[in-house]
Order: sequence, then structure tokens, then C-alpha cells
Amino acid sequence: MRAVILLSGGIDSATTLAIARRDGYACLAVSFDYGQRHRYELEAARKVAASLGVVRHAIISFDMRTIGGSALTDDIAVPKGRDETQMGGDIPVTYVPARNTVFLALALAMAEARAADAIVLGINAVDYSGYPDCRPEYLDAFARMATLATKAGVEGRPLEFLAPLVDLSKEAIIRLGLSLGLDYGLTTSCYDPAAGRPCGECDSCRIRAAGFAAAGAADPRLDPTRWR
Amino acid sequence: MRAVILLSGGIDSATTLAIARRDGYACLAVSFDYGQRHRYELEAARKVAASLGVVRHAIISFDMRTIGGSALTDDIAVPKGRDETQMGGDIPVTYVPARNTVFLALALAMAEARAADAIVLGINAVDYSGYPDCRPEYLDAFARMATLATKAGVEGRPLEFLAPLVDLSKEAIIRLGLSLGLDYGLTTSCYDPAAGRPCGECDSCRIRAAGFAAAGAADPRLDPTRWR
Repeated sequence: MRAVILLSGGIDSATTLAIARRDGYACLAVSFDYGQRHRYELEAARKVAASLGVVRHAIISFDMRTIGGSALTDDIAVPKGRDETQMGGDIPVTYVPARNTVFLALALAMAEARAADAIVLGINAVDYSGYPDCRPEYLDAFARMATLATKAGVEGRPLEFLAPLVDLSKEAIIRLGLSLGLDYGLTTSCYDPAAGRPCGECDSCRIRAAGFAAAGAADPRLDPTRWR
Repeated sequence: MRAVILLSGGIDSATTLAIARRDGYACLAVSFDYGQRHRYELEAARKVAASLGVVRHAIISFDMRTIGGSALTDDIAVPKGRDETQMGGDIPVTYVPARNTVFLALALAMAEARAADAIVLGINAVDYSGYPDCRPEYLDAFARMATLATKAGVEGRPLEFLAPLVDLSKEAIIRLGLSLGLDYGLTTSCYDPAAGRPCGECDSCRIRAAGFAAAGAADPRLDPTRWR
């Protein structure tokens, strides 16, 4: 069995890759260089892919800045120091328009070209912080569309879309990854790192810290010897 | 009203843009530079966009060759000299995996970032030459997915997806474009042009020639003074 895995270099996608490897998939990891400010995550994705033994790691470049509209690619300030009550509710300014749809579409192209059986991604509806394209009903609709879009689907071999983290809390995700031997020191989460050092203040750093605290584990990423 | 138009530089997308302009849309044209062999079409798209007065023409670059799998981006020979019975049925080798899904996903990102009301594209199920992602049921499934994917959709302002050519023959498309004053000499169709000169033998050239013949019109693209 062969799977295409969306790999960002963060906790969720790294855990997803570890699960797919545990489940016996030959893994084609795909990462995206889309003009994001946190390009450090591509380096993290490379380390995670190498560490977990993928068949291939493709990095697809495209320029999301041509499209516009998010703090992650434009010059809008990344919000910092928000507590959890401030993170919920509204769609945040860090929302990249249709990002998961673009990523899944490119993963779909790769899955079709390379005859993969599944696409596996780390979306999560529990820590859902206002991104509409992180919900299971979204993924179901994408899968239905994909079956109609592709040669394999039309010929009766629809791709599976697997989201093994969709119902897990960040705590549960981290516990699962640790039980699989995953080195979270290879991963990165910060929206706005400086010289490899997480800022500790953005939503993503805060969610990560709360997850490690709840799991009763130290975050190896906070070890200064692992910054670069 | 504002619309994002997928503009390839061929007959169908140029006619679609002319229809959207007639219908009063301010048009954001988007073209893709994806490593296709027929990059000449990007030059045609620029000419068509300028001729029809778009608000903006974005060219989004990404590398489909990283993904692989088609005669249009790989080194597989483009089939030539096939008659219509040979074109039907099987999915052709010129099929680019999930291409319309990738294009629509990027158009969706642009539509959301720029608050467009509609995405308009020139897919056509009559001249459907085996591409699964040219069928109306595919587009309906994409629209349902897009409503779940986007801020506008979640907030009750779903994008419209318009495919004004979907039920038209190539003859009817050409007649309609001519009635709107469209200069088809700006467009290109050939999969394998040399120095701007259409090969006349690939499926796309043959479909185009049959369409002009049925419409009783000369194809201005065949005027050697318009090659470059």
C-alpha cells in the first residue's frame, strides 16, 4: 500500500506520518513552499521525512503571494499573546485562503500520477481554531469530488482519505507520537520563529506548549541546543 | 459583481471570458505556468486578457513536473493524426492528473482572497474527450466542497461556479464567441506548436479545425501572418 502524506513539519503532520508508517504504508511525503513566512518548517519537514524513512519527499513550489490574503504570507502582524478564549470563534487572520484545498489538490495529482492508495493528512477538528477546511465534513466533500475528478475514481478505485488525528486532542496526539518513538525535536510549530527559536507567544506556540503540558512531557524543541 | 476566470489561452476559456464580460462581471483572469510543453498558450492568455479588458491577470507558477504523469508535461509523445473515433473512450495520455482540481483550488484561493462572487470556467462535456474533471457532476462536487472549505461559504455566501459552455458543441462555442466579437486569432489550441505555428495534427488542432468548419468560419489562427 502506498500513501501520499501532507507533511508540514509540525506536530500533527509528523505524527500522521509516524502512524502511516506504523500501519505499513510506503509513504510519499509532500510539502509545499508557498511563500510562507515560516519557511523554517520546510527544513523541519525534511528532517521528519528522513527520520521516518519515506520513499520520496517532494517539495512543490508555488507562489501563494500572487493570490494574497493572510498574515502567514503577507505583511499583516501575526497575533501574539492570545489566550484560548481569544483563539476560538472567528476565523483568524492567519487563515490562508483555501490552503488545504490547494494542498489536497496537489496531493491528489501526485496520488493519481503515482498510483497511491490513500492520502493521509493531519487535520484536526478538536484544536479546530476557526479554519473551515479542517473539519471532517470538508474532507468528506473533498473525497467525493476527488472520486469524480480522477481516472482511478472513475474506474472504481477511489482514493482513501485518512485523517487519523481528526478526533484527537493535542495531548492525545503528542502521547501517540511519543509512543511511536517520534522525536518532536525535529518538528516546528511557531508562526514567527527567529533563527530557529520559537517565539513562544503565537497561537501555534501556545497550543503546542499546552499540549506538551497536558501530556506531561517536555517539548524537546525548547532545548536551545536544537535551535539552529 | 466580480468573477475569477480560468484563462488558458484556448478557444473555450477565451469564449468564457467574453461571456463573463458581456454579463457584466469585473474579471480576474488566472492562468497557470505549470511546466506545460505548450507554454505558448500563456502568451495567448495575456493577449486575450488584454483584449477583453480584465481587472487583473494573475499567472500562478507551480511545477507539475514534480508530480509527473502526462504527455503534456513529460516526455511521452503527443498522439497525432487520430480521427474522432480514436479520440473518444479511454482517458488520453495528454491527461494531466487532477489538473482542473489544482487549477480550481488555486482559483478558489484567489476568489476567497479577493472576495469574488463567482468562478467561471470553460469546461465542456460535449467535446469531453475522456477527461473526468470536465463533467458537470465533477464541478457540482467541487462547488459543494468549496462551500465547506471557505470563510465565505461557511458564512452563507457560497461562491457560484459557472460553466457557460458545458452543454455547447465546439461549433456553438465558436459561433457564440464570434457573435461577441472575440478575435480567435489571439487564441491557441495546439498541444505541440513549433514557433507559434499549430501542428494541425494533434487532437486539439483537429477538434478546433472541425469546430471552425462546422461554424462555417475561417480560423484566423491559421493565417501565417499571426504566427510568431
